[in-house]
Amino acid sequence: MADEVKLYAVAGSPFVCRAKIALNMKGIKYENLEQDLSNKSAELLKYNPVYKKVPVLVHNGNPISESLLIVEYIDEVWKGVPILPQDPYEKVVARFWAKFIDEKCIPALYKAFGPDGNEETDKEACEQLQILENELKVKATKFFGGDNINLVDIAADFIAYWLGIIQEAAEKTLVTKDKFPKLTEWADDFVNLEVINQVLPPRERLLAFFKKRFGKA
Amino acid sequence: MADEVKLYAVAGSPFVCRAKIALNMKGIKYENLEQDLSNKSAELLKYNPVYKKVPVLVHNGNPISESLLIVEYIDEVWKGVPILPQDPYEKVVARFWAKFIDEKCIPALYKAFGPDGNEETDKEACEQLQILENELKVKATKFFGGDNINLVDIAADFIAYWLGIIQEAAEKTLVTKDKFPKLTEWADDFVNLEVINQVLPPRERLLAFFKKRFGKA
Repeated sequence: MADEVKLYAVAGSPFVCRAKIALNMKGIKYENLEQDLSNKSAELLKYNPVYKKVPVLVHNGNPISESLLIVEYIDEVWKGVPILPQDPYEKVVARFWAKFIDEKCIPALYKAFGPDGNEETDKEACEQLQILENELKVKATKFFGGDNINLVDIAADFIAYWLGIIQEAAEKTLVTKDKFPKLTEWADDFVNLEVINQVLPPRERLLAFFKKRFGKA
Repeated sequence: MADEVKLYAVAGSPFVCRAKIALNMKGIKYENLEQDLSNKSAELLKYNPVYKKVPVLVHNGNPISESLLIVEYIDEVWKGVPILPQDPYEKVVARFWAKFIDEKCIPALYKAFGPDGNEETDKEACEQLQILENELKVKATKFFGGDNINLVDIAADFIAYWLGIIQEAAEKTLVTKDKFPKLTEWADDFVNLEVINQVLPPRERLLAFFKKRFGKA
């Protein structure tokens, strides 16, 4: 029986994009079901009653939500290019950094670029990013995953792609080549991978969206 | 070579307790290194430089932090009683609920029993707990894991044990048998398991600690 794979998605979301990256890495054919979050579908509410959010992956009728969990599920079910290391210690380290990105970096960046963003929130965001910068420096590899991307790189897609666009739209720059040389190099390498840029939403559309949000349109 | 396993711990923490439950389930011998969090040791800072928190498990020199990640690591490295389901879909569902407990239930309960706890925060905490109550009702099993505990039950140790003590100390009760029949039954079953009550901190000590914190000592 062929697998039936559906992705409840919105085009501009870095969290949805994580799932799309994993699906693309594994070469999985799926149906993309674009959602209107201002008028949530009965199916989305049925499949993710707790959070009512995208992405939701539905695999042979079984719904899975939470983007990092979706990525781990895809890696476990579909063989091929690995997303998580096989070694249990390397695996838990990757999970640690992915969790750190979700719980520390992204919330700090949301605050810094949110309506109450100020010097203090900018400093906090830079402190979290500095931890990632240091991790890349210590690893001395092209990606968080080494020579190839892994769960951590995928988790950081917001930092690699969205953040630069948001910085441009908000006319405020926290991440520069000078302050974060490793992170900016990593971001360039990441978005230039074919498997990544095939699924990134168009830059111009995101830029227009964020310019509007920041009142700079 | 015998495994060298150390746990950087504090006795009263539900997060540390998660790691202890997993170690106990697997029958792993380990050295418990009680920490003074008001004067953090150089080793704790070295092993968990990002969060500087317990628990940290150090396995043959490799440090692992974040309690749920520790539990998953233990399950992967040591065979024996399973903590996560083998089936990828059941596994991701267990991870989803463990994450929900960490990200929704526990923060909501902390707020409700924190210095700014009020009717609104109580309501929010009860709404999150109701989701767990419903999940137990739908599953119709003794534990979140089914006939036996799994990652979700371990993640919910705070709700099973600490919450009742905190309610008594704070002289405020959100969870009653009437309002949450399934959850209270589950909590009783959980704390009565030998593998659990062997590692729970003494009730009287926790009660005294929380009474002091709530100014009821």
